Amino acid sequence: MERHIEINCDMGEGYGRWKMGPDEALMQHIDVANIACGFHAGDPSIMMKTVRLAKQHSVRVGAHPGLPDLAGFGRRRIDIDPEDMFCSILYQVGALVAVLLSEGMKLNHVKPHGELYFYIQRDPAILRAVVSAVRLFEVPIYGLPTRLMTETCRELGVELIPEFFPDIDYDGDGNLVSVTKSTAVDGKLIDRRIRNFALRGEVLTSENSTRSLGFHKRPFSICLHSDLPGALDNVIAAKTAVAEAVAALKN
Amino acid sequence: MERHIEINCDMGEGYGRWKMGPDEALMQHIDVANIACGFHAGDPSIMMKTVRLAKQHSVRVGAHPGLPDLAGFGRRRIDIDPEDMFCSILYQVGALVAVLLSEGMKLNHVKPHGELYFYIQRDPAILRAVVSAVRLFEVPIYGLPTRLMTETCRELGVELIPEFFPDIDYDGDGNLVSVTKSTAVDGKLIDRRIRNFALRGEVLTSENSTRSLGFHKRPFSICLHSDLPGALDNVIAAKTAVAEAVAALKN
Amino acid sequence: MERHIEINCDMGEGYGRWKMGPDEALMQHIDVANIACGFHAGDPSIMMKTVRLAKQHSVRVGAHPGLPDLAGFGRRRIDIDPEDMFCSILYQVGALVAVLLSEGMKLNHVKPHGELYFYIQRDPAILRAVVSAVRLFEVPIYGLPTRLMTETCRELGVELIPEFFPDIDYDGDGNLVSVTKSTAVDGKLIDRRIRNFALRGEVLTSENSTRSLGFHKRPFSICLHSDLPGALDNVIAAKTAVAEAVAALKN
Amino acid sequence: MERHIEINCDMGEGYGRWKMGPDEALMQHIDVANIACGFHAGDPSIMMKTVRLAKQHSVRVGAHPGLPDLAGFGRRRIDIDPEDMFCSILYQVGALVAVLLSEGMKLNHVKPHGELYFYIQRDPAILRAVVSAVRLFEVPIYGLPTRLMTETCRELGVELIPEFFPDIDYDGDGNLVSVTKSTAVDGKLIDRRIRNFALRGEVLTSENSTRSLGFHKRPFSICLHSDLPGALDNVIAAKTAVAEAVAALKN
Repeated sequence: MERHIEINCDMGEGYGRWKMGPDEALMQHIDVANIACGFHAGDPSIMMKTVRLAKQHSVRVGAHPGLPDLAGFGRRRIDIDPEDMFCSILYQVGALVAVLLSEGMKLNHVKPHGELYFYIQRDPAILRAVVSAVRLFEVPIYGLPTRLMTETCRELGVELIPEFFPDIDYDGDGNLVSVTKSTAVDGKLIDRRIRNFALRGEVLTSENSTRSLGFHKRPFSICLHSDLPGALDNVIAAKTAVAEAVAALKN
Repeated sequence: MERHIEINCDMGEGYGRWKMGPDEALMQHIDVANIACGFHAGDPSIMMKTVRLAKQHSVRVGAHPGLPDLAGFGRRRIDIDPEDMFCSILYQVGALVAVLLSEGMKLNHVKPHGELYFYIQRDPAILRAVVSAVRLFEVPIYGLPTRLMTETCRELGVELIPEFFPDIDYDGDGNLVSVTKSTAVDGKLIDRRIRNFALRGEVLTSENSTRSLGFHKRPFSICLHSDLPGALDNVIAAKTAVAEAVAALKN
Repeated sequence: MERHIEINCDMGEGYGRWKMGPDEALMQHIDVANIACGFHAGDPSIMMKTVRLAKQHSVRVGAHPGLPDLAGFGRRRIDIDPEDMFCSILYQVGALVAVLLSEGMKLNHVKPHGELYFYIQRDPAILRAVVSAVRLFEVPIYGLPTRLMTETCRELGVELIPEFFPDIDYDGDGNLVSVTKSTAVDGKLIDRRIRNFALRGEVLTSENSTRSLGFHKRPFSICLHSDLPGALDNVIAAKTAVAEAVAALKN
Repeated sequence: MERHIEINCDMGEGYGRWKMGPDEALMQHIDVANIACGFHAGDPSIMMKTVRLAKQHSVRVGAHPGLPDLAGFGRRRIDIDPEDMFCSILYQVGALVAVLLSEGMKLNHVKPHGELYFYIQRDPAILRAVVSAVRLFEVPIYGLPTRLMTETCRELGVELIPEFFPDIDYDGDGNLVSVTKSTAVDGKLIDRRIRNFALRGEVLTSENSTRSLGFHKRPFSICLHSDLPGALDNVIAAKTAVAEAVAALKN
């Protein structure tokens, strides 16, 4: 049986005239695009343009909702009331679903952006609010397969697709290191990290120890940052590494 | 056969801590609520609160998208590219559809707000963009039954529900006078205007002539402004007037 | 020598078409207005209107900068980088200074709003950023005379005007209780609290103990909330209480 | 007597994490920077960063206020009430003045951005509002020396510094052609256009006629777009052309 390993990137993270990553170049190499929904980045026209670009390259589209903070790109901590959070996720995802509707496409998943990605890890009420909103769209949520996350998703009946990050570091406890504190990567390192994880479930931590993340035998998604300097090289290297890992796992 | 005459009000037009009309008081007297979608007013939490209030009073809910202008309450002219407009309507209506989904409700219609209501009357490309977006949701659009509007809706296969405004004036050409330039109304005047229109299709213009608007025999919707000083009195008077007009038309 | 006791209110906290407190009614009874600067509330036109209203009633005007959060009215926690905070305060206060310039008025002080008022109490780097920005305008800062606040202001050469709050509660440690958790007040209670504090420096805490706040012999400012239900009654009661306390202290 | 010819560029037109032109590279070659003030682009931190960059290169700084439209980069038509416009200019310029204050710098001028640059050409009430606001800061305004502009500035006592644009086209009437409709330029063309204008006051129009703009003997400012593909080359070519033109005019 073939293993499901896919590559996802955040896309459509410009705003008005401002651009973020090289979406056009990246889109032809990835499997899944997480499209910003207007709160941390993205606007209705950029969402449409990015959805059409994804459609052209047969890339599946998920919603990438964030905290309401254009100036901080959704990366600053903001205390949100859980009920407000629930409504905010509905709003953002619903907006993208309508844009997808106009292209005859369906929502693939929801992946929280930036600080929200970590907010749900440390605040059970916020996690519950987000997962409850995702449930209404009947799609999986992408994220870190922590115990809290896993149990909340199971309880609420939402599938959790775990993510692996080959372009940033993991610390000695297996937790993600922030982009700014991670070491720079190149295609070779991306390749090595993906093979290590896909075949053996291991990451080499920033403390030079090996750690097992424990979810490599399930379907998982590999996230690559579209706004890193070598984003295109990273994605191309990842694509090859995934193909070879999947082939190796078949035999 | 019973005539379909209903009363609609704009609702949920606060933002954050700021309130606009007396939504709680009005909601129990109206048939249809047009809920602001976050661009000229409204935020995700207010949208949810207003949807729940509507549900509680069995009021049908439409989307009330506006121009992206919180500071101007969607009442200032802004030149929007038609493609941007199309995406903007999808975004706003989609957001409300998701909020409705969470309450098990369906979208009833779309009614453009403020300046956008008039923008589509004078700009065929913008009208086409808006109606094309509404079509994707398979609901009617509320608006003025001008020739351009009527023809565009027919061509694109979108039902147009014409609106009658008893709390502002019509000028000698049968066009709406702005709220600020209209004469003040009370319950009695609302009552008289609704009867005149429902039974005979007539409005008494601001120039003291009588004019036929020509759509009183079709189903139509009566719009009352929720932010006028006597809004509650106006709505209560309108409700009685509609009931009596419908009864009179039956016989 | 006459004691300096003044009354301040937050003013100009509407946005676009939305209003907050009864500014027109309150302005004639207060000494000092803290005018919102556009980040948590207020827009350029409201700032101008409020400055003119203050001028008409010979009310001194301070800047009331807040966190960048219209939807949350500046009351939600947001993690801001201290350097960003420094720039944000300069921006907001500078904007008000220009509006004052057009009316030939000078800035009286700066008073941080809402969550920012408390953020500077718990984060020394943020406090330093805010006080450093205030220093450039050569005006005092209004706030709670905690040790950290007092020392930072002294070190940076900025005068601190301590505030007393008669319309919300103090807990057993002499800390402020939030508006929503405080008991409702009326004019009589406002009157009693001001006299107790002005003459003896005491507050009756929410735990029914008496506590000395320790700054009643210095010039201080009494803050009344302009958005509480009985705001006008509270301000009128406070005005009388201050006049009588000042007279009593003279003798 | 030496002729005053200077080069100005719009700077600081990013927002949050988003960047616009190559500010760092350009700043060392220009004389004057027009810094965005947060309404069409720019935020307090970017303003500060850009002011410091200007200071480092001894570049004078002007305010570059725009319409309140981040999503449209201040390039869409918006109907603004003249009184609102007056307050909006005060707000934006005042904010920059405070940022300059923190670096011990003074405001050099005000230059309206994008659509606002043209709005003041066609709407006398808006022009008057803008010039009245600029007057309070006691600095010149940069712009097109049309009759209306010239007369309004003279009447209100504000100096007008006329601008010449060597990187976009002039039509047969001597009016500016929009960036998107202009022919692409390179360093050679920039050089030729600046010499033609500086020495003889002439532009070669897009209709291949020669037209005199009539202000080359007064001090004027040459504006180069910082967001065009070859912006750096253009600025370097312009710098040399200006130096040589000034030298030629001396002899």
